[in-house]
Amino acid sequence: MQPTQRRLANAIRALAMDAVEAANSGHPGMPMGMADAATALFTRYLKFDAADPNWPDRDRFVLSAGHGSMLIYALLYLTGYSRPTIDDIRNFRQVGSPCAGHPENFELPGVEVTTGPLGQGLAMAVGMAIAERHLNAVYGDTLVDHRTYVIAGDGDLMEGVNHEAVGLAGHLKLGRLIVLWDDNRITIDGSTELSRNEDVVARYVASAWHTVECDGLDSASVSRALDAAIADERPSLVRCKTIIGYGAPNKQGTAATHGAALGADEIEAARKALGWDADAFEVPEDVLSGWRGTGQRGQSDHAEWRRRLEESGKRDEFYARLSGKPDESWLQPHLDELIANPPKLATRKASELALEAINPVVTSTIGGSADLTGSNNTKTKALEPLTADNYGGRYIYYGIREFGMAAAMNGMALHGGVIPYGGTFLVFTDYARPAIRLSALQQARVIYVMTHDSIGLGEDGPTHQPIEHLQSLRAIPGLEVYRPADAVETAECWALALASKSPSILALTRQNLPAVRTKAVGENLSARGAYRLKPAGADRKVIFIATGSEVEIALAAAKQLESQGIGADVVSMPCMELFDAQPDTYREDVLPDVSNREILRVSVEAGTTFGWERYTGLHGLRIGIDRFGVSAPAEDAYEFFGLTPDAVAARVLDYLKQREMR
Amino acid sequence: MQPTQRRLANAIRALAMDAVEAANSGHPGMPMGMADAATALFTRYLKFDAADPNWPDRDRFVLSAGHGSMLIYALLYLTGYSRPTIDDIRNFRQVGSPCAGHPENFELPGVEVTTGPLGQGLAMAVGMAIAERHLNAVYGDTLVDHRTYVIAGDGDLMEGVNHEAVGLAGHLKLGRLIVLWDDNRITIDGSTELSRNEDVVARYVASAWHTVECDGLDSASVSRALDAAIADERPSLVRCKTIIGYGAPNKQGTAATHGAALGADEIEAARKALGWDADAFEVPEDVLSGWRGTGQRGQSDHAEWRRRLEESGKRDEFYARLSGKPDESWLQPHLDELIANPPKLATRKASELALEAINPVVTSTIGGSADLTGSNNTKTKALEPLTADNYGGRYIYYGIREFGMAAAMNGMALHGGVIPYGGTFLVFTDYARPAIRLSALQQARVIYVMTHDSIGLGEDGPTHQPIEHLQSLRAIPGLEVYRPADAVETAECWALALASKSPSILALTRQNLPAVRTKAVGENLSARGAYRLKPAGADRKVIFIATGSEVEIALAAAKQLESQGIGADVVSMPCMELFDAQPDTYREDVLPDVSNREILRVSVEAGTTFGWERYTGLHGLRIGIDRFGVSAPAEDAYEFFGLTPDAVAARVLDYLKQREMR
Repeated sequence: MQPTQRRLANAIRALAMDAVEAANSGHPGMPMGMADAATALFTRYLKFDAADPNWPDRDRFVLSAGHGSMLIYALLYLTGYSRPTIDDIRNFRQVGSPCAGHPENFELPGVEVTTGPLGQGLAMAVGMAIAERHLNAVYGDTLVDHRTYVIAGDGDLMEGVNHEAVGLAGHLKLGRLIVLWDDNRITIDGSTELSRNEDVVARYVASAWHTVECDGLDSASVSRALDAAIADERPSLVRCKTIIGYGAPNKQGTAATHGAALGADEIEAARKALGWDADAFEVPEDVLSGWRGTGQRGQSDHAEWRRRLEESGKRDEFYARLSGKPDESWLQPHLDELIANPPKLATRKASELALEAINPVVTSTIGGSADLTGSNNTKTKALEPLTADNYGGRYIYYGIREFGMAAAMNGMALHGGVIPYGGTFLVFTDYARPAIRLSALQQARVIYVMTHDSIGLGEDGPTHQPIEHLQSLRAIPGLEVYRPADAVETAECWALALASKSPSILALTRQNLPAVRTKAVGENLSARGAYRLKPAGADRKVIFIATGSEVEIALAAAKQLESQGIGADVVSMPCMELFDAQPDTYREDVLPDVSNREILRVSVEAGTTFGWERYTGLHGLRIGIDRFGVSAPAEDAYEFFGLTPDAVAARVLDYLKQREMR
Repeated sequence: MQPTQRRLANAIRALAMDAVEAANSGHPGMPMGMADAATALFTRYLKFDAADPNWPDRDRFVLSAGHGSMLIYALLYLTGYSRPTIDDIRNFRQVGSPCAGHPENFELPGVEVTTGPLGQGLAMAVGMAIAERHLNAVYGDTLVDHRTYVIAGDGDLMEGVNHEAVGLAGHLKLGRLIVLWDDNRITIDGSTELSRNEDVVARYVASAWHTVECDGLDSASVSRALDAAIADERPSLVRCKTIIGYGAPNKQGTAATHGAALGADEIEAARKALGWDADAFEVPEDVLSGWRGTGQRGQSDHAEWRRRLEESGKRDEFYARLSGKPDESWLQPHLDELIANPPKLATRKASELALEAINPVVTSTIGGSADLTGSNNTKTKALEPLTADNYGGRYIYYGIREFGMAAAMNGMALHGGVIPYGGTFLVFTDYARPAIRLSALQQARVIYVMTHDSIGLGEDGPTHQPIEHLQSLRAIPGLEVYRPADAVETAECWALALASKSPSILALTRQNLPAVRTKAVGENLSARGAYRLKPAGADRKVIFIATGSEVEIALAAAKQLESQGIGADVVSMPCMELFDAQPDTYREDVLPDVSNREILRVSVEAGTTFGWERYTGLHGLRIGIDRFGVSAPAEDAYEFFGLTPDAVAARVLDYLKQREMR
């Protein structure tokens, strides 16, 4: 006899209780409350094949309420994914187990995205649903036709990014996005009434979503709601009324079940209440067999899809696109043109020129901006907007939603088949920072086009002028921060960002810059992270290390020093991270490890000097800005902060003189 | 004859056009569209006295759409504030003018908050409205009885923080908060329809707000709407239907008026259309006199209020509270107790103990947490919740709204009379970062209680373990980041944060730590930023520089080295910023400027090593974590990353040995 849906669900409950108990750490409440809803979803709706977690046309499942990670670990195990094993689950939250505290996409196939930072799972799902519709527009229903399902909790719905994600999804009419809201009326601090009196459903309706309610503890009721959600053309919020920790007779319905082990007594009582008599970590044969059947449910669909793919004649193209390796044929002709006619222009404009070369060739890019299209120069001429009426478009007007944009881009990148890039001002990376961190943690190829990258943006003043941002972003592991000095470096950095398997930030100027790379070299010099742009003429006494718009200043300051017989190298450093990864020999050639008395190292960057000691050493000179900016025209602002060739040369001369006097 | 409301409003339009034209930079569209609404608000409703911008019971006005800064500069000038002068306005957006690109509270009295980063003005206004109701509960209607008015644009309403702020305001029933929404249907990229199809009014209704609509270009219509808003007990959204750039006949209603000068021809056409024949920067006598009357409108109310204050017998107490100088009598007895009975406890718990001493004495504190009360240890026993039914409470359940909490705290601090502190996990400073930056820029005394400050939080894993956060926060100018090592340092840091005029972050552990400060010293050592906690026994060859939970590890590693005859200082560095501000002599005593060959400097912090070169020098040793974390029990995670006394001592020994071999 097939086990009942409730019995299948109880396997999730039992594993969640047992794993959290063994770890003495974790969150049993959510998996226990949503076990029935998840069972309905997985056994009847979710299109997947446990034997091939990467089937491109699978439905995507996102556990936005990532603290309830045991829900997805249980589901993956029960449905027969190769991992996690039951031993992995026994080692929940221990070194070496892929069953981490929160679900991480790099630990387990089947975990589509890394969740835990609240609100972002749902926002990434919006990006997945965008990618799906776009690829559907490109390849048609026969190859791309899947849904994105999300389980979200009250935390996901209270976070600000929820507003941005929901607004974007409603606007783009992403009808294949279905969010199951675990409405258990409990947060960590207690009742949701402590902090919220909002009519959540009405808010979703106001954002052009379909909504439907159900008893989240009754899989039949959940199924009826999912039927309605699937039938509606709008994105759907399925309100699942549940009880947190359902099944634990003395603790259910309270915050006590949210984030702590239930304890042996309560687990025993729960087993009794649920009629579950298997031992810890054991799943009765009928239940396991029922779940394994669910894991195979998609096999015929999958086979059918493979047949359609073969018949489509697009097999190779389709997989090539999914592989994500971008065509680089645009680069050399573009560089040749820049060398032939060295332009004086802002690097944001240079980025646009690069994109004009890239977008016709790398057709998987999807551009966008958080309402700064004309300032970020992110829209190339031929790109049509991606809208509810034209999912085939490749440019998204994200609105004033930096965080929502970044999270959606993560979802798009992780969905696969598209390379998202999006713009805002560099200072507003702060708004998107939680998603930028997740780009890095997830190794999602998202390209952030961050313009107006210094006081050089001018009059908008301190609130808009980045100071600490470059260094703060460089401090994030697994993220490449590029700050090119001219159009050639900008093109090189774009090539690196496209070829990367991880996220990149391009920090670009508002103001015009002269070309500093005017000779063909047959090598992507930016790939070295830093390189000697101009060697000293006279005996080398100084090395300038500069980035972006300050390379021009360093070059001019070096010229002044040379005119006084002081030899000065100028090193352009478009990417610290790549330079740090170079072999010692290369790094020591560029920045010799000698005392600053012998050769003075001088950093020049229009931002905080914090952290530049890494390249100048303690006794080098760091020229930058260690306070907030100033509202003034760009040139005046540079003058104000002593970031001019005269002022820089004077500071170096003064420093050399002081040193001699010591 | 009194000028009409429209004629008064046209003075704002003209000044906005002229100033932006002179600067050839700025945003005329918003001031021109909202001039009539602002005129209605200032001439008929806003309670203020231009002669005393700091009158404590004034209404607060927040220009959340800060790019329209000329609106407020024009209003301050016209109503007779001492600054800006007309020359200040002529120098709009130039070095030296207080009329910066975006309104900055430190430039001009009358500018209550710094706005420009969208959404945050409105969110800060929520904090101001909270502070007002709280002080009203303390001092009664006779002393505190004012409203908070906001002008917000579509950008403010699309940002995620709007959702958090609106949810909080609705929940707390902040009826004295009134938001005028400049509904001009235009964003930078074009029509709002490019990115939004939300029913904004319905969303506010769903969040328990009152809403009302009006013709924003008709001051009588605006007045009727404001009457309705004032009459309603809920916070109000006043939808002002406007035309961006209203008055510029050829450009109004388009994004072209948003962020660029109109040009001489269009300005001339606008002057004609508006019937405005005064020269640039000139305001006709009747208009100026009308506006100056508005600036004096509040004088009798103000005098009346002063009389009530005198009669209340609370004058000195009231001003003392507003002065913000906290009572420090709690500190010494608390330290004495900690020295007498050195506790082993997490610094988050030590923070709670400090707060138990602080809160009864410093009665202006208002605590809270973004739904992590029990984890952040922010609620002391006697604090009652601040709710819609009890504004006199001093603890706010902010919900899962880190950014909204931080922005609200900025508003509370800038309102004055309260000292806000609030908690979340350190990793989620990313969510609040835009507001943390504004705390620093505005020099708002907000105290961020950020617990779970490293991999020491354990099993929750990489998404929850801060790596880059300490250094990223230290890179923000004007922000003190404290990472105390035990209960004594925690109390010292709390005292410093309370006494500061600027924001502080307290980074606190989840895990228990031993007491490292066990002797009375009669001085707040943390005020030095760093100090020699343990001097070398043997001949000094090594200096450990550690923070927080790693001080314990450094002490134990030093002991191991000493046992091998290698003298090692241990420097505790609870606050880099304060150490950097010490005199050279002090800094050089703690960290002598000698080669690492002579004395090896070793930093130990469970986070990125990026930037630690500042203290170790290039050839020192930096022990930390330069990748994302790991899900495991805290001790295992420390072991995994080599952050144990054995591993640290071994690395130092190995380093010393390698050096000798060179």
